[in-house]
Amino acid sequence: MQLRNQVEWALHCCAVLAGLPEGARLSTRVLAEFHGVPKDYLSKALQNLAQAGLIEGSLGPSGGYRLGRPAAEISFLDVVEAVEGAGRSFACTEIRCNSPCLAEDHKPRGPCQIARVMWQADAAWRRELQAVTLSELVATLAQELPADQLTAAAEWMAERAGR
Amino acid sequence: MQLRNQVEWALHCCAVLAGLPEGARLSTRVLAEFHGVPKDYLSKALQNLAQAGLIEGSLGPSGGYRLGRPAAEISFLDVVEAVEGAGRSFACTEIRCNSPCLAEDHKPRGPCQIARVMWQADAAWRRELQAVTLSELVATLAQELPADQLTAAAEWMAERAGR
Ligand code: FES
Ligand code: FES
Repeated sequence: MQLRNQVEWALHCCAVLAGLPEGARLSTRVLAEFHGVPKDYLSKALQNLAQAGLIEGSLGPSGGYRLGRPAAEISFLDVVEAVEGAGRSFACTEIRCNSPCLAEDHKPRGPCQIARVMWQADAAWRRELQAVTLSELVATLAQELPADQLTAAAEWMAERAGR
Repeated sequence: MQLRNQVEWALHCCAVLAGLPEGARLSTRVLAEFHGVPKDYLSKALQNLAQAGLIEGSLGPSGGYRLGRPAAEISFLDVVEAVEGAGRSFACTEIRCNSPCLAEDHKPRGPCQIARVMWQADAAWRRELQAVTLSELVATLAQELPADQLTAAAEWMAERAGR
């Protein structure tokens, strides 16, 4: 079970957008260059984020993306689900109903015990991702990354940001 | 992010094998018939379980599979990892190192903050799956399934089991 690479890209783009000064925007081209990833594939991931309302795009020469709502209101789960979809990682196809020992009109009561365990684990995964917001991520980055690295990145962005 | 259908099949096969009387074995054909799934695809999943030591096969006309160790020592996680592999669901490709603002010889300290959150969530998922064993599953099934259904299944198996 493997998440797409675009999840890593989308989370990093959101972290960058969450750290921008008020009103600033970054284009797909700039985000692709900063992260060293192919612009066309990144573009698809950014569209997913925009469709989910997590980021907001504007057209024109100084256009680009900014967050669609406050960073404190966007969780890791929001970003992951925007890119991967919100479906559970385990799909039960009800194979328990295929048993040759069951009556023709057999209807199982409630979900399968096996599916329940698998869905509990899925819920635990989502809970962890829901518990961390982009604003917490930005705070951790500000604490842990070397100051000169943060300054260099902020300057690089400022030179390329639209408004 | 979606697990293979074989995970559902493998878990159900393990539940059946965990419920067999001491010494009994079931062939791939019988397990496929009971679950109504294609024998050839199931065969691959059973081979994965055998490679992981969770089940143990024997050849010959009365051959088949039985558990490779006590049901209390096999967790959902063991079964899922045997079929899906034990790799983390999130792979970090270190895109943070692609930034044009970094010095040529930049070496990041420790794993990326984003990867850490994703791996914590992955660990929470695995913890849940590790916490439930096949013997707990069999106990729940025995409690929750109608008695006549359990008896019918046990008789159907007994007629087809090898030793
Ligand atoms: S029938 Fe789908 S998990 Fe049991
Ligand atoms: S560099 Fe891979 S998740 Fe941040």
